[in-house]
Amino acid sequence: MGLKRSDRRGFLKSGAVLAGGLALGAVRPASGQTPESVAFIKGSEELIAYGQRSRFETAVRISHGRTPSPDAFGLVKHVATPLQESVGVITPSALHYVGTTRGSYIPDIDPQEHRLMIHGMVDRPLTFTMEDLKRLPSVTRLHFIECAANRPSPTAKTIQESHGMTSCAEWTGVLLSVLLKEVGVKGGASWIVAEGAEEVKGASSIPMAKAMHDCLVCYGMNGEAVRPQQGYPLRLLVPGFEGIFNVKWLRRIKVVDEYYMTYNDYGHLRQEPENAALGYLIGPKSVITFPCAGQQLPGRGFYEISGLAWSGGGAIRRVEVSTDGGRRWTDAEIRGTAYRMAHTRFSLNWNWDGTETALLSRCTDEQGKIQPSRAQVAEFFNVPLDPSYRVPGRDNTIQTWRVASDGSVHNAYA
Amino acid sequence: MGLKRSDRRGFLKSGAVLAGGLALGAVRPASGQTPESVAFIKGSEELIAYGQRSRFETAVRISHGRTPSPDAFGLVKHVATPLQESVGVITPSALHYVGTTRGSYIPDIDPQEHRLMIHGMVDRPLTFTMEDLKRLPSVTRLHFIECAANRPSPTAKTIQESHGMTSCAEWTGVLLSVLLKEVGVKGGASWIVAEGAEEVKGASSIPMAKAMHDCLVCYGMNGEAVRPQQGYPLRLLVPGFEGIFNVKWLRRIKVVDEYYMTYNDYGHLRQEPENAALGYLIGPKSVITFPCAGQQLPGRGFYEISGLAWSGGGAIRRVEVSTDGGRRWTDAEIRGTAYRMAHTRFSLNWNWDGTETALLSRCTDEQGKIQPSRAQVAEFFNVPLDPSYRVPGRDNTIQTWRVASDGSVHNAYA
Repeated sequence: MGLKRSDRRGFLKSGAVLAGGLALGAVRPASGQTPESVAFIKGSEELIAYGQRSRFETAVRISHGRTPSPDAFGLVKHVATPLQESVGVITPSALHYVGTTRGSYIPDIDPQEHRLMIHGMVDRPLTFTMEDLKRLPSVTRLHFIECAANRPSPTAKTIQESHGMTSCAEWTGVLLSVLLKEVGVKGGASWIVAEGAEEVKGASSIPMAKAMHDCLVCYGMNGEAVRPQQGYPLRLLVPGFEGIFNVKWLRRIKVVDEYYMTYNDYGHLRQEPENAALGYLIGPKSVITFPCAGQQLPGRGFYEISGLAWSGGGAIRRVEVSTDGGRRWTDAEIRGTAYRMAHTRFSLNWNWDGTETALLSRCTDEQGKIQPSRAQVAEFFNVPLDPSYRVPGRDNTIQTWRVASDGSVHNAYA
Repeated sequence: MGLKRSDRRGFLKSGAVLAGGLALGAVRPASGQTPESVAFIKGSEELIAYGQRSRFETAVRISHGRTPSPDAFGLVKHVATPLQESVGVITPSALHYVGTTRGSYIPDIDPQEHRLMIHGMVDRPLTFTMEDLKRLPSVTRLHFIECAANRPSPTAKTIQESHGMTSCAEWTGVLLSVLLKEVGVKGGASWIVAEGAEEVKGASSIPMAKAMHDCLVCYGMNGEAVRPQQGYPLRLLVPGFEGIFNVKWLRRIKVVDEYYMTYNDYGHLRQEPENAALGYLIGPKSVITFPCAGQQLPGRGFYEISGLAWSGGGAIRRVEVSTDGGRRWTDAEIRGTAYRMAHTRFSLNWNWDGTETALLSRCTDEQGKIQPSRAQVAEFFNVPLDPSYRVPGRDNTIQTWRVASDGSVHNAYA
């Protein structure tokens, strides 16, 4: 079961893993070796120009919602990341999740022709070319984006189906505050409306305080241009807010003095705008990516449990893991820097004894907010907890994976 | 010219850029806008599975050395990263530089068949499958790799030709020390020999102290599997050492008690092994990636100068930029976290007055080592400095870019 922090360092060092019958299933004395005759990849100029992954790597995104037509994105609303294959904290751009609600065709934009207009309650309305934006002071930050619909689900067979609508990338661009200072925001302006170039010119209303704080107008993603499915050539990053605010193919920002109702309003403003704005924040959330539903453990023995944690409220401060269905919790190790509003990798060493059990993770963010269980949420709303219980609003509850005695891993809520 | 640190924050805020005649060349009042009729990308299932970059993005790697044959990699020794297009600190895996000296075909390895054998002066020689390795405690770290031949050059027309043989990625894998502790290194063992699966089974000898300190056996790169050109399914990362030590397609590590001369020995051991080992370290180095040779400034006005700095000796502590040919130096801003042995992004705000000038950067690492000029190196070796002067060994000297009055940017050494 869970190891205490003090045990961890000396665990492998002691040789106990190998000597004590808790060995890696497959490690063997050095007699075998990779076959001597190695095949080689026949290259091409194309492969020099822009490399590809191995033909043995087959992790792909999957589409949720409607079935893809030959036009594919024309009818696909949700394309989910294969988190079961994730390593580190960066999602490769080719595997970054895609959510779309404003017409789902991907605009094919020539960056030379693209403009960002900022107007409304400003002293100097301006139009920026891509070249203009790239001349301005830039920042690079690691941030996750997550669809508000991403959640534990009784129908999900895999983590990709339940949690695949979140991804994390290194974003580069200009702070929106720099642009807003250039145009000069007039007194009384309290919201911005950000509009993309997609079919229905969908827009999102964002509080001015957030816009001036840490929003980014991004042209770079993971070291190259933002991908078309992510808003090429320009997207808005609204760190920690629901995915829908991160406007893609950004072409216009209007500075206004009240919340604008838009095509995308999912009932955010049933409350007062000021309170509702806080409600846009993705709550502290975590999920174990290995082992997870759909995977198969080859046998008892040592495993590193690994997962991702993130919060719209800032940096992840703590992740706890339970390997006994939630009775005991052990602090996981946070791997690398826990950035604000970014996926954070955690891990815990684990010896599986071969009996059925359940794995859970829960995280705490820098504000002290703790990821809740489904039972806690049901109790809060005073409703019965059953497998089909759907958490109202965004769902950041704990995911439980059931490990069967044959090593198969399952969604405990299915 | 260079702005003082204290001036920077209020620079754009004040509106002086726009109001004072030092405006962005192309910013204009908000009358124009992206054309209303937007074309859309016709999708495909393939595009859902694994996304692609925009057809408008054309940055590619270029091959150095011999001309590519139809078999391409069969005759290509150096494939350089387009640093002129870089943003942030991550190099996209598709654009990561490739260097090869041990037969240059790319092995086509089935990860199910791949094994890593560790043997020699050990208590328990072991063979690990990929599955074994992925069960062990992992780490994720940002690290650069650089070819020892990467350097300012009088023949280089672009930064890609002079500096493109370095890249930086988020690497995930097992600390080599974990594996070495598993096999149990015998007393007296002082070196390891790491061997890849390429044609000539090239190998590198690495001091045991380095092997136990921070070397990584990597299966992950930028959030997915290591790419074939980078050693799929397994490569050794030797942070801060010359590129040649970072053995790709890693299949065997032999623990030994002396330096082994290998196919790849580029005279590293003309000195005592202990001293030579220190000589493997890439020195503190930096280069301005915008503006750089081959680029064209559209006119006078405001620009963010941006570049990369890195050192084999640890983290970058300071970067200075000169915008007047080296007479005055200004501290640049370090963007994001300066990780040890990782590319570090720096930037400096700059108003170009339209006259010919030269841009330079120099960095200092955590050990206090400062990137030298070519003149300093020539003086040290007491040789005349002329344009064709070739710095002996690795060359981490300052690169100067000349900005002509027409805005074109050139290699000052060409």
